[in-house]
Amino acid sequence: MAEQQRVAVVGAGLAGCLLATLLGRRGIAVSVYERREDPRVTGAERGRSINLAISARGLDALEHVGLREQALGQALPMHGRMIHGTDGTQGFQSYSADGTRAINSISRSELNHALLDAAEKTPGVTLHFGRRLRDVDLNTGTLAFDDGTSAPADIVLASDGSYSAARRAVTFREGFTFSQDYLEHGYKELTIPAQNGAPAANGGVAGGGSKFALDPDALHIWPRGESMMIALPNLDRSFTCTLFWPKGELAALQTDEQITGYFRTHYPDAAPLMPTLVEDYRLNPVGSLVTVKAWPWVHHGGSATLALVGDAAHAIVPFFGQGANCALEDCVEIDRCLGEFGGDWQRALAEYERRRKANCDAIAEMALDNFVEMRDRVNSPVYRAKMAGQHFLERRLPGHYVSRYELVSFTTMPYARIPARMRRQGRLTAVAGAGLLAGTLAIVRRALR
Amino acid sequence: MAEQQRVAVVGAGLAGCLLATLLGRRGIAVSVYERREDPRVTGAERGRSINLAISARGLDALEHVGLREQALGQALPMHGRMIHGTDGTQGFQSYSADGTRAINSISRSELNHALLDAAEKTPGVTLHFGRRLRDVDLNTGTLAFDDGTSAPADIVLASDGSYSAARRAVTFREGFTFSQDYLEHGYKELTIPAQNGAPAANGGVAGGGSKFALDPDALHIWPRGESMMIALPNLDRSFTCTLFWPKGELAALQTDEQITGYFRTHYPDAAPLMPTLVEDYRLNPVGSLVTVKAWPWVHHGGSATLALVGDAAHAIVPFFGQGANCALEDCVEIDRCLGEFGGDWQRALAEYERRRKANCDAIAEMALDNFVEMRDRVNSPVYRAKMAGQHFLERRLPGHYVSRYELVSFTTMPYARIPARMRRQGRLTAVAGAGLLAGTLAIVRRALR
Repeated sequence: MAEQQRVAVVGAGLAGCLLATLLGRRGIAVSVYERREDPRVTGAERGRSINLAISARGLDALEHVGLREQALGQALPMHGRMIHGTDGTQGFQSYSADGTRAINSISRSELNHALLDAAEKTPGVTLHFGRRLRDVDLNTGTLAFDDGTSAPADIVLASDGSYSAARRAVTFREGFTFSQDYLEHGYKELTIPAQNGAPAANGGVAGGGSKFALDPDALHIWPRGESMMIALPNLDRSFTCTLFWPKGELAALQTDEQITGYFRTHYPDAAPLMPTLVEDYRLNPVGSLVTVKAWPWVHHGGSATLALVGDAAHAIVPFFGQGANCALEDCVEIDRCLGEFGGDWQRALAEYERRRKANCDAIAEMALDNFVEMRDRVNSPVYRAKMAGQHFLERRLPGHYVSRYELVSFTTMPYARIPARMRRQGRLTAVAGAGLLAGTLAIVRRALR
Repeated sequence: MAEQQRVAVVGAGLAGCLLATLLGRRGIAVSVYERREDPRVTGAERGRSINLAISARGLDALEHVGLREQALGQALPMHGRMIHGTDGTQGFQSYSADGTRAINSISRSELNHALLDAAEKTPGVTLHFGRRLRDVDLNTGTLAFDDGTSAPADIVLASDGSYSAARRAVTFREGFTFSQDYLEHGYKELTIPAQNGAPAANGGVAGGGSKFALDPDALHIWPRGESMMIALPNLDRSFTCTLFWPKGELAALQTDEQITGYFRTHYPDAAPLMPTLVEDYRLNPVGSLVTVKAWPWVHHGGSATLALVGDAAHAIVPFFGQGANCALEDCVEIDRCLGEFGGDWQRALAEYERRRKANCDAIAEMALDNFVEMRDRVNSPVYRAKMAGQHFLERRLPGHYVSRYELVSFTTMPYARIPARMRRQGRLTAVAGAGLLAGTLAIVRRALR
């Protein structure tokens, strides 16, 4: 009976493709509707990516459809943060106490292409491109598209992102608690290209003879307080940079001189590595940073049910690198619930939203919190001492003391348990005193070098 | 030049009418569009009022259009809270230290009728009923209505309430920070009719020989923790009761026996006063309690500007009796800003949103806070001791110590200053110690009576 329900997935981004693939493998026929044309044909939009940092949760989800190794093969591991001072100095901070753990820089579009391929070749999954959703009618069970076409659906899984079109159909329902909270900061993508070394033997291959302008084993951060820039390495040995700054400030840089002048002053070591800075700054759009919260995630009409998935349910800011990881976890949870409830969609979706809500709220808060940490605190002596103290404790108390960053990035512990774990850990190990001691020792040791 | 702008007000509720009247008096032509038919002709909807408690801010705003005395003439003063225990006992708590201040129970529809009359007779103001807004196009400056008609506007003032239709036109604009937050609690209106005494001499006149079933000089509260009922007196000597309870609980009472049984157990002194309880409970809808926050309030398009006013900008829960008072203050502020900027709408609206935002955020928070206080704390010995302590301090330190309730309800001090004032007051008077002392004395005195 459950198999007879017509299932539609809205949005063929990372979550939509993974979800369709998981459902297809379960023997469920799924129609996926994507507003863009096939991105494997048309290519990505300019300047709207923010590279992904795939970590334990995303990899675990990809493993469910056998894509873990393929994804890692397209990714570059980053074992820590490289902090760039205004004086051009660089300082490396390992993400893990033992230095072995890494998050993985991967191109959003490459990963999306791999997931589109996986969905397309899964029996039962049909991809429909160029179908921009206009409205969902849950009473008749109909999706209406901008091109005038429509499609029937009993179960609508809305994985169409932060600005979800499917969500609009329920936004003004009485009792739908909803918020979209924009940061004053926007972002602008910039680039540090590969540096040409000696020409490669075979000539012409992208990156053949070139090298990375910065250490590719790190996520680079230029913390400047009000503004911040980050850079993630790409396979072609370039870096994608993202400048975060209040939107008013981003718009205020107008002339070539203002743009180059600002970067020479505040990002003196990066500016010379950015030959297309002015062009990138001019042409790339200003992106928004929004946190979306919604409740409930599952909505019923006379003949159809809508469930919000991934960013459509809980868009978060990118400062913990967890947006995609978290969305992929949603898909696995829906699939798991369907398994547990023998394909009963109503029970499965009710359980999905119940299990995921607190976790997604928790990472949303940690992501906002991390913005302050990244743009400001990472560069302070107190923060460095705290980090040193944390790693000291992690090494001395393996398994007992684990930093928040490690729990978020290198485990699949439910996000919601992490804040409580951190508080418990703090009490149990009397972290304040020990951290201060370890930090002081680290500073003294460094000073005596 | 400013006079040539076509001004539309959406919604002819309390704020829309006051705003149109103020603008008309300023010589500005205003078209008011209201979705309902003229409520002076059709009457009010069943069970959707929550009586208003008009206090200093609302009265001050009404004074600007000469309606203060008329409103007070239709109102019943309530000098304090009457707390009803589960054992049927009643305890009166004065709203002010000197016992002279009162909030004023008034029928929302009566006040709306008076404001509609005032708007209608103001030169330049035109009221259009039965025009339900479908969309606002700020690029063409057009309002489109459900009946297929449209109207031009350069300035659109959206005073169409918590579920504002005008606001939908900007809800999905990038950068519009917006939240609608529903409480788990809903509400249900019930009634305590006037009690028939000896027939009036002239016979037949409503309330002629009848009397109030409860003290009409108080806002009655039945604090029960998870649920709460309040009752406000009406001119016809009835009381409008509002039961607040989680929506699931409200829906769970089904049979006549369940309804009457619940009230006899939890509201034993009120139940016998409610002869139409079962009918009211069955027929009246469950209302929602929503807090709406939005930013910005002013939105520009190619040829028109939209400003959110009152509940459309900042709907709040009713537990401080300030929703209408706050909305009316908005209107006065817009009018004041227009005066200060010589009729320059753009500067006036920018200043309006700047001045009002923090104030409306502050009362939104205090209103939520007061829910906990009303349904729970008012009945505790600690709370009563604190109240006694506050009043003691207010009498001993006149002008220096003023309670939050008095600042909100009996002054026009900007809401946003009140929390800081309360903190300062707490520090300066060492309120904790003194309040405890005064409270203890009060308890001891009561015990020795």
